[in-house]
This record gives sequence, C-alpha cells and structure tokens, in this order.
Amino acid sequence: MDLTFLGTSAGTPTKVRNVTALALQHGNSRGWYLIDCGEGTQHQILRTRHSLVRLRAIFITHVHGDHCYGLPGLLASASMAGRKEKLYIVAPGPIKTMIEAVLLASDTRLDYELAFIDVGALGFRWEDQAVRVTTVPLSHRVPCYAYVFTENDVPKQLLTDRLEESGVEAGPVWGRLQKGENVTLEDGRLILSDEYTAIRRRPRRVVVGGDNDNPDLLREACAEAQLLVHEATYTQEVADRVGPAPQHSSAALVARFAESVGLPHLVLTHFSSRYQMMSAGGPQVSEIAVEARRYYRGNLHLAEDFATYFLNTDMSLNAPAMVGSGSFRS
Amino acid sequence: MDLTFLGTSAGTPTKVRNVTALALQHGNSRGWYLIDCGEGTQHQILRTRHSLVRLRAIFITHVHGDHCYGLPGLLASASMAGRKEKLYIVAPGPIKTMIEAVLLASDTRLDYELAFIDVGALGFRWEDQAVRVTTVPLSHRVPCYAYVFTENDVPKQLLTDRLEESGVEAGPVWGRLQKGENVTLEDGRLILSDEYTAIRRRPRRVVVGGDNDNPDLLREACAEAQLLVHEATYTQEVADRVGPAPQHSSAALVARFAESVGLPHLVLTHFSSRYQMMSAGGPQVSEIAVEARRYYRGNLHLAEDFATYFLNTDMSLNAPAMVGSGSFRS
Repeated sequence: MDLTFLGTSAGTPTKVRNVTALALQHGNSRGWYLIDCGEGTQHQILRTRHSLVRLRAIFITHVHGDHCYGLPGLLASASMAGRKEKLYIVAPGPIKTMIEAVLLASDTRLDYELAFIDVGALGFRWEDQAVRVTTVPLSHRVPCYAYVFTENDVPKQLLTDRLEESGVEAGPVWGRLQKGENVTLEDGRLILSDEYTAIRRRPRRVVVGGDNDNPDLLREACAEAQLLVHEATYTQEVADRVGPAPQHSSAALVARFAESVGLPHLVLTHFSSRYQMMSAGGPQVSEIAVEARRYYRGNLHLAEDFATYFLNTDMSLNAPAMVGSGSFRS
Repeated sequence: MDLTFLGTSAGTPTKVRNVTALALQHGNSRGWYLIDCGEGTQHQILRTRHSLVRLRAIFITHVHGDHCYGLPGLLASASMAGRKEKLYIVAPGPIKTMIEAVLLASDTRLDYELAFIDVGALGFRWEDQAVRVTTVPLSHRVPCYAYVFTENDVPKQLLTDRLEESGVEAGPVWGRLQKGENVTLEDGRLILSDEYTAIRRRPRRVVVGGDNDNPDLLREACAEAQLLVHEATYTQEVADRVGPAPQHSSAALVARFAESVGLPHLVLTHFSSRYQMMSAGGPQVSEIAVEARRYYRGNLHLAEDFATYFLNTDMSLNAPAMVGSGSFRS
C-alpha cells in the first residue's frame, strides 16, 4: 500500500507545492485511488507512474477549490487518454453540480461513464477488490470528510493440517477455498472456506483527513489505523493570530491527538503558503515539524510534493522515496 | 509591448507544455492582459514577473476546457493575493455560467468584482488607457474569437514650430495639448490639440487567434498588424489523417495565409500533444516549423512555454527571452 503526495499546499499553489491531492495505490493491478484533486493535479500525475486510465475512484473531502478545481481537466484528459471504464467520484453533492455545469459549458463529452456517489449519504461505504472505504465527518467551514482506507484483500492462509485431517485432498479445491469459496465435494460434503482458512495479520488501514479543526473526531477511526494523513496548516502561534474562523488545525493540535491514540505513523500536509522552503525568506515549514515533535513521539513526517510512502505488511512505513521531477518543484 | 507564452499545448498538458494561456503586457504601469486560461495558468504565472493584482482583463477565445479551466483557481488566488480592483472577463456567454456555478458550489467569495462582458455581443470593443481590443469571429466547433490588441497610447508629438507661429507660449498649455486636451487661452482663443500635435508612428497591433480552421477570416485584421499568434495544431499530413472534424489549422494553412497578407511576424502555438521535444520519441515539433517555412518567408517562431517576445516601436520583434523556470519545463 503506497501513498504519493501530489500537492501539499493550502489554498494556493506555491512554486514548490501544489494544492491538495494524494494518490493511494494498493492491489495487484495498477489500479489506484485519488483523494482530492486541486488544480494542476493532472499535471502532477504526468510525473508519476500513475495513469488516468487505471484510476479506480476519486474521493473529494470537501468543496473548497484547492481540493477540487483540478477535476474537470483531469476528467477531460482521462477521456482523451482513451479511458472507457466507469469512474467513481465520491464527493459532497455540490461537486456533481459543479462538474456537470463545467462539462456542459465547455461542450465536453467524456467517452466513459461518471458514477457520482454522495459521500454524505447515510451508511456510505465504497469498496472494490483491493480496498474498502468508509468516512468520518470532520469539522470545517463546509461539510468535510476523512476517508478511511482498509485493505480488502489480505490473503487467506489455508489450514492444511485441518484439510488433511478432514480428508480434503490437495488440488483445485484448496485453491477455491483459499479464495473464499465454499466447495461441495464429490462425496456431497460442503466444505466452508472460513473453517479451513485463517487471516494471519491485521489489514492495513490509512486515514486521510480533509480540512478539520477537531482531530479528536478521528479517534475511533484511528484506533485500528497505522497511518494518519492530516492537515497542519500552521503552528499554534500562527493559528492563534489567524483566529478560529478558517477552521484549520495547528501542528500541536494534530500531534497531541496522534500521541493520545498511540498512532504509529503521522504525515502532516496542507501547509499555509506563508511557509516557504529553507532557501526563501519568511517562516519555515520546519517550524511545523518542531512543534509536532514536541507532542508526538511516533514516526512523524511532513509531506512534500512527489514524496511516496510505503506502508508495509509488517505495518512499518518506509522513509519517503521522491518520484517525479520538475513541475511545481524548484 | 511584450507577450509571454504560459501554455502552448493543445487539449492536454505535456511535461514541457501547459495548455493555452498568453500574457500580454503594455503600458507604463505593470498592468497586463491574459488571453485564455487553461488549467495551471496560475501556476505558470508564479514563475513570471506578472501579478494577479495587476491583471487588467482576461480574454477567453472559446469555451473548450484547455482554454478556460484555469479560471476558477486563478480568480480565487487573485482574491487571496489581496486583489480589490474590478476584473474584466471578456468571454463567450457560457463562461459566466460556468464561473458562477463553480464559485457557488465551492463556497468561494471573491473580495473584488467580476465584470463579465459577452464577446459575442454586437459591436464589442474593450479598451483602457494602454490598449483597445476588438474581435474577429473564427471557425471552430464552438463560437471562437481572435482578439486584436492595438496600442492606445502612442505618444503625440507637439508641433512646436506651429505653436510658436501661432504665438502659443511654451508652458503648461503645451503639456495639456500633448495629452490630447483642447485648451482655451487667456485671450479667448480655443487651441485644438489635433491641430498642434501629430502621431509620428503607426500603433503596434497584435492579433491573437483562438482555435480556427480558416485563417483567411483574419485577413482584414492582419492588414495593419505586425504580429499574428495562431494555432498550428499539426502538420498538413497529420491534419489530413485526423480529418476536418476537430476544425484546427495545419502549419501549411496558417503559413500560406501569413505570406499572402505580408505579415512581418508569425508565432505558431497550440501544438498537439503528439509532438514531443527533441529528446523524446514520436513526431517532432520541428516538423511544424519546417512545413511553415516552406510557405512563409517572414519572421517565424514556434512558441514555447515561458518564451517572451518584445514587439518594439520600430515594429521589429526581439528573439524570445525565456522567463521563469521549472514548472512544466523538463
């Protein structure tokens, strides 16, 4: 399971950070998932190994432009790239209105079907073979959601001793049982997959927050998660100066929460454009890291555009590899 | 008068060319004009000297996404950058619908006024102190327009010999006459500015085409122009293979037209993403230049992202300077 950050700036792009988007890849196929889609996301994707044809679903946390203005261009380019497969867009209701208005005004027809799913609908849940996705409502100026990705395809292990005890001979039947299928033998016995297989490890779980001023809302979702991706728009000092109206989190707020739930890995993102890289003047994004480390003793990272994190089956997180080049990086 | 290409790719961005946008700067202030605004235009602007606060007006040639999907993000960022001044958007009618739908759906309020002007309205003409802008309807799949920029502030020269003959003494009156003001002298005589000033050179004129399969429509507009910026999406061979449906121009078509009107300078742009830079495989954009040179003997350029052309008062065009860096350049 890996995550590639395609944008890590809040509100507006900077020369080195685009606005929010995150690619999550999991499963044997090259299928992947996009969480948020700020303007320029399709440009960033050009510099990764991901293809718009293999994209399985898009999840939008909320309607603010820095999280969704890249959708129309990405959808149009997917069609020009030859996509024919239905594309799921899980998003707040107004996103559907927006996309339909833009495609109509720009005389744009897609060669594939868009399947909109309202994330606010009761009992929302989306899944495919590789992942299942649930949501947590957050606290922001507009309805906003965190997406919880849990791997859906943890391989079942055959309990071969038990199969042999029961006289089920090795062969195609074993393969069908491992895939979860119940099998009726030639002698008429029904062999249940669950009785002859076991899941040997916990499924990996990643929580991707949207904009949010109350991380505590993610307590339950994070209990079984290994990794939380959450905004930390500024330090507490800046947050106090800005006031509560924007409804964003400080590094301190997120770090205290992560420590309190014993989260193994925390990646902060969505930094105010006032934070610059080391070379430029003004406040440094490293101040956010310093503040977060004061409260959180787990594995902390500050996201950068094109950083890719691998969450391994042993629940360790690989230090980020940088993919791509150029584009919004200096 | 200078032009900076912010995007030179047709349909979709590539790693080295963004979708269409062009910055035109003229006048003493740092005010400038944007023609078309494909997705990622605000990112490109970050790498130039232009500011969203000093932008005077946006001109959109037609509704296709690669010419306008960057508008919502650019408008929002202009507000976040502190813009308060009214911004003119000259565009086909559906652009207004689109922008209003997107701003509404994304809960985005701008701290300045948007003044939409329907480019299709009869007798359209826009001007400020520095330029006047007229249009030419083109031939494309949707209503599409070329914008003709003529400098509006060619300095008047005082005819000092004639002023002295008439006994108008040097002083503040001369300055007012030079600015175009008619002045009543203390002795009651009305002195007309036009009778005591002259314009010593032709105003510079640049024609910026939109997508168009019939360059001949620009014949009249180009008669008094020094520079035409026009799409040449592919070579004639590719155009023949693609067929007439997309309604684009080949290099040959535009070059023949430019030669027939004796145009001094021609800059081609909007290249199909099938054309790559020298380093990559596939057809080369240089094939478009070779084809155009076969028919056009004037000063030919193929636009690149961040190339800046200066049109001088003697009507010469400076070889392009490259501004900016990084971004969509490899």
